[in-house]
Amino acid sequence: MSVQKEIDALLKSRRKKSIYLDHAATTPVDKRVFKAMEPYFAEQFANPGGFYDIGLSAKKALTGAREKVAKYLGCEANEIIFTGGGTESDNLAIFGVARAIGKGHIITSAIEHPAVLEPISRLEKEGFSVTRLPVDKYGMVSVKDLEGALREDTILVSIMMANNEIGTIQPIKEIGKAIKKHGGRVLFHTDACQAAGACEIDTGKLGVDLMTLNGSKIYGPKGVGVLYKASGVRILPQILGGHQEFDRRAGTENVPCIIGFAKALEIAQKERVKEGARLCILRDRMIAGIEKSVKKVRLNGHPTKRLPNNVNMTFLDIEGESFVLFLNELGIYASTGSACSSERLDPSHVITALGVSYEWAHGSIRFTLGRSTTKEDIDYTVKMIPRIVSILREISPLNLNL
Amino acid sequence: MSVQKEIDALLKSRRKKSIYLDHAATTPVDKRVFKAMEPYFAEQFANPGGFYDIGLSAKKALTGAREKVAKYLGCEANEIIFTGGGTESDNLAIFGVARAIGKGHIITSAIEHPAVLEPISRLEKEGFSVTRLPVDKYGMVSVKDLEGALREDTILVSIMMANNEIGTIQPIKEIGKAIKKHGGRVLFHTDACQAAGACEIDTGKLGVDLMTLNGSKIYGPKGVGVLYKASGVRILPQILGGHQEFDRRAGTENVPCIIGFAKALEIAQKERVKEGARLCILRDRMIAGIEKSVKKVRLNGHPTKRLPNNVNMTFLDIEGESFVLFLNELGIYASTGSACSSERLDPSHVITALGVSYEWAHGSIRFTLGRSTTKEDIDYTVKMIPRIVSILREISPLNLNL
Repeated sequence: MSVQKEIDALLKSRRKKSIYLDHAATTPVDKRVFKAMEPYFAEQFANPGGFYDIGLSAKKALTGAREKVAKYLGCEANEIIFTGGGTESDNLAIFGVARAIGKGHIITSAIEHPAVLEPISRLEKEGFSVTRLPVDKYGMVSVKDLEGALREDTILVSIMMANNEIGTIQPIKEIGKAIKKHGGRVLFHTDACQAAGACEIDTGKLGVDLMTLNGSKIYGPKGVGVLYKASGVRILPQILGGHQEFDRRAGTENVPCIIGFAKALEIAQKERVKEGARLCILRDRMIAGIEKSVKKVRLNGHPTKRLPNNVNMTFLDIEGESFVLFLNELGIYASTGSACSSERLDPSHVITALGVSYEWAHGSIRFTLGRSTTKEDIDYTVKMIPRIVSILREISPLNLNL
Repeated sequence: MSVQKEIDALLKSRRKKSIYLDHAATTPVDKRVFKAMEPYFAEQFANPGGFYDIGLSAKKALTGAREKVAKYLGCEANEIIFTGGGTESDNLAIFGVARAIGKGHIITSAIEHPAVLEPISRLEKEGFSVTRLPVDKYGMVSVKDLEGALREDTILVSIMMANNEIGTIQPIKEIGKAIKKHGGRVLFHTDACQAAGACEIDTGKLGVDLMTLNGSKIYGPKGVGVLYKASGVRILPQILGGHQEFDRRAGTENVPCIIGFAKALEIAQKERVKEGARLCILRDRMIAGIEKSVKKVRLNGHPTKRLPNNVNMTFLDIEGESFVLFLNELGIYASTGSACSSERLDPSHVITALGVSYEWAHGSIRFTLGRSTTKEDIDYTVKMIPRIVSILREISPLNLNL
């Protein structure tokens, strides 16, 4: 059969229902979340700073949401700072600490989200010194490496809880312990945007001083995030001009989205264990199915210490972009490169950090499952993948040795 | 009649319907705006960075919203930066310009919003030099003063279009002309958060380089704002970690709220002239009614060059807080001090800048009318005010000379 005929046959087999497998990029707002938010747009719309009944009730709702978030984070309500999203929270943690202290040494990992790496790079240009810990072939940070990197002038360690591309879950508790053992006044920040729906996020148990969460990754609204900041930790606010959020983040509080965030976190944490188990089965079924039916394929990330919803694989000799576009033609929505910047064609800094060669770094595809994902979705996707791979390898200019 | 009896009689006369007169603090989301936003929470929820059908359609919606906003601002779509709100936009304009240039002189006015004043104060501490222009007794900046303040090393002028407390509208066009006449590379930023529903905001006609808008002041959602930045103007981004918004503001785009913002701006600008005329009549009716029935009262702000919805008055010998609480008992929601920080009891920096004595600065009450405000609401409020004033003056410890 000619390639064109193969393509035609494949496209004909497209199901009506499309399959969203990019939940790490963003999640839909859960119906229960939307229902909780809805009254706060047009009815209970007042500014919580207002000195009158409907202002006070908006403030009460805000306080309730803050207490709910604090409960799931095992902290006090006054340790919760609501922000405009995960990126802003990461920036506030890093710039906030650095600007409050003024100088020093920062430790991070090579595979952090750009919302962590870029603020740290700007600080490095300004004179802060920076250590970027490598990761092993599974994307795991070594606690020993971290211990070796800690210095007397270290002010901050920022290591993500779970990676957004490859799903590897870091040993946050052990890192927290190593930092405390080192002593000194080193602060520990973790970006838990991807982890909040899948991992335990009790700040006391984790031993973190700062933690970033994001609404739009946990079936909450976009435009809202949280920075947990342990009381006593000093950060300089980055957005000025109001006394909101305990003087740490100015701007009228986004009440509807904050209410939505709290509800989303509640659902995510309550359903975490059950939904996690369901997703792990689907995830492993998908990985096994692909590995069985496709040659020259590699799972990126840790085989077991990974997010329940993450399948990241490299298909040798295939451009990730072509793969994603082909999947799209079949109604399967996945991504390549980084979650949030898949328009860029550079190989991912995360995959590169795994120590794989350039040819293995370039064709990584990320499938991230979610609440809507069914066994049928996975089976259909697994069935289509070898056919797509076969076509793309046949027409690939990279394919010199097959 | 004893004071207690007066109070009881007054509270008995409370209507069932409450009257929201704090539209400068925040506005409810317009039904048409909510309808436009709604599909983007759970259905068309994809990340606009996604390389698949629903990602591309999210991107298309985002582009459409950007083009709509640009149309009303008389600029190009790539001159629109969506942010997390007015405060963030103000901060981005000021820090963005200052950090891109590195040093220099900044001019602002004494009555700006804290979202402008506080970033400038931080820059001043870092070594930038700052001129804060005074205002006249109506809260008006003098173009002559501005011309006198412009220096060779001036990098930025930030003057608000309309004041959030007293409603005075500044001569933005004239200021823009004076800055251009001065020559050099002085950038002109205006905070138009309060003005966007009432004034012309065509950036070309105004001669501004940067302009801040806010969703929640124009019947749009909270948590979204705009910074207009003329092409060619260099600003350093303040939130890093993604290529969104032309590399000027990182973070997944808040599509539902951006769609809502564009719709809100469209409605605000389309209905601006008609609604403005309606509000001016109500505003002037209210001012005249109060002046007629209450002694020792002062209108703060310009008598005619003021926002159509703003009534700000000082009632001598009365604490603003008591007044607002009393109004609240009657179901009338107003504010004292600054819009966004009415929990603070310091006299407002805006009223103080008008050159009034301390006793006249302390009791200012702001009523800000809106789309829901009727003639009946105003008449009821005007009827209640002299009765409240009479009671409060009777029991006031400040009242030594009545």
